[in-house]
Amino acid sequence: MAHKRLQAYLTYYQEELEKAYTSCFNKLEIPGNLKQSMLYSLDAGGKRLRPILLFASYEAYGQDVQKAMSSAIALEMIHTYSLIHDDLPAMDDDDYRRGMLTNHKKFDEATAILAGDALLTYSFELILNDPLLTADEKVTLTRELTACSGPKGMVGGQILDMEAEKQSVSLEAMEEIHALKTGELIRFAIFAGAYLANATEEQVRYLEKYAYYLGLIFQVQDDILDVSGEEEKLGKRVGSDELNEKSTYPKLLGLEGAIAQKEKYVQQAYENLKLAGAEDSLLKALTDYFSERDH
Amino acid sequence: MAHKRLQAYLTYYQEELEKAYTSCFNKLEIPGNLKQSMLYSLDAGGKRLRPILLFASYEAYGQDVQKAMSSAIALEMIHTYSLIHDDLPAMDDDDYRRGMLTNHKKFDEATAILAGDALLTYSFELILNDPLLTADEKVTLTRELTACSGPKGMVGGQILDMEAEKQSVSLEAMEEIHALKTGELIRFAIFAGAYLANATEEQVRYLEKYAYYLGLIFQVQDDILDVSGEEEKLGKRVGSDELNEKSTYPKLLGLEGAIAQKEKYVQQAYENLKLAGAEDSLLKALTDYFSERDH
Repeated sequence: MAHKRLQAYLTYYQEELEKAYTSCFNKLEIPGNLKQSMLYSLDAGGKRLRPILLFASYEAYGQDVQKAMSSAIALEMIHTYSLIHDDLPAMDDDDYRRGMLTNHKKFDEATAILAGDALLTYSFELILNDPLLTADEKVTLTRELTACSGPKGMVGGQILDMEAEKQSVSLEAMEEIHALKTGELIRFAIFAGAYLANATEEQVRYLEKYAYYLGLIFQVQDDILDVSGEEEKLGKRVGSDELNEKSTYPKLLGLEGAIAQKEKYVQQAYENLKLAGAEDSLLKALTDYFSERDH
Repeated sequence: MAHKRLQAYLTYYQEELEKAYTSCFNKLEIPGNLKQSMLYSLDAGGKRLRPILLFASYEAYGQDVQKAMSSAIALEMIHTYSLIHDDLPAMDDDDYRRGMLTNHKKFDEATAILAGDALLTYSFELILNDPLLTADEKVTLTRELTACSGPKGMVGGQILDMEAEKQSVSLEAMEEIHALKTGELIRFAIFAGAYLANATEEQVRYLEKYAYYLGLIFQVQDDILDVSGEEEKLGKRVGSDELNEKSTYPKLLGLEGAIAQKEKYVQQAYENLKLAGAEDSLLKALTDYFSERDH
């Protein structure tokens, strides 16, 4: 697919998502300071990759993504809450993200903790209140979302990641951490889109494998950019992983080895995409986009 | 009701709840450190008042509380997560709770933040996976629970409470803060029990009013105990509200005035309990218990 068409797609869905969540927040009657803090970090969001994957997965099998909108917003809210908590002094202690002050720097730590809690809780509420979804769909989506984001998923991965810091871990252990910490939300994106568009169970199974490799592609490229990227494009310092003594693909495999590993993941992703009958969908172009991104 | 029968009831349901959540955690495959941290604070729990209110509300209209168990555990987990985050250095900065080290003191701040996040997320998952509930029941329960605990409920109340600190607020403003910060989870307890036991919509409406007053009774008694309680029974320092310059009932109304205000709330609670057809239930005895507790 031409780069231009993908870029137009990304821009279109970024704007659709932002319009949709802004409309939700306009109707939400909550304390002003809390709303500002939640919206500050949502608005500071980057490329909206998770929602866009969800839309693309939906469009591989169905039409009219409105049915997937509440899940996409919920997913972006959960991603945002995890960044707010990750940036806290007790965690990564970051003052800036994407060139803007982190939530606890813009507001204060207590507000940032509560804004994260509120985004997490409200994300489920959004899906549960969506008039376009049946009760069964609501249950399936929220159940998957809790599993992907909670102790068995993202939060579990964050704990493992903390434990793995300052020690070298094997490639397998590192893959497990990434699969939980970043992969599970990507899996939800791919699952939710296909599920809502009535993909078959077999298609969903292959797509979930695809999502697993896509998550790893995302992570290995992140590690590669941390070694060889341009600070201006990244909006953060190059070499911060080295500084934090984190286990990364380049450290375990060398830069060339990391790039070769990424290629293996890309082939696996393609393969499963084909088996899911979605090789002609936007997911193919997004796979390349993930693999080749420079920020 | 005789004090002894209430005490036996409390003990029985405390144990049932603890058995049930321990069984859930035994089956839960998550990183060991995360599980320990989640369980540490759950196990440090006190009287399990919220789950017990849920069971009592259920028993006012139905039998076999097993159907209400997942909601009761979820509610206790959300209460526990809120305490873990409240105790953090950036919030209340408490080293001890109920005579035990707080979560971030026993583990570390990062683990405590993540344990809170995990308890919150897992609470919804428990309800969504409960085989005793229909899809409609799951949707109703989780939707109410997100509303009660999120930005429109408890978390909103915590933000208002922080904003009200170090300034004197009116009785009305203080009531609004309490209604959100502590009242909404109590409302969920009462709602969920009656709803699951198939109480009529009218009964539920009156019960929710009852829950509103019960929450205020809980809070005014908390404030009264902070002035006149015994440290040993409370497990915390008497006079800490004064120290923290918090607006309290005794400060706004004097100790006598606070006791009179509590009596008004008790009468309102009785009245709505009667209108809900539940004046002969355990909720009556629990109202008195809330009103007269010494710790």
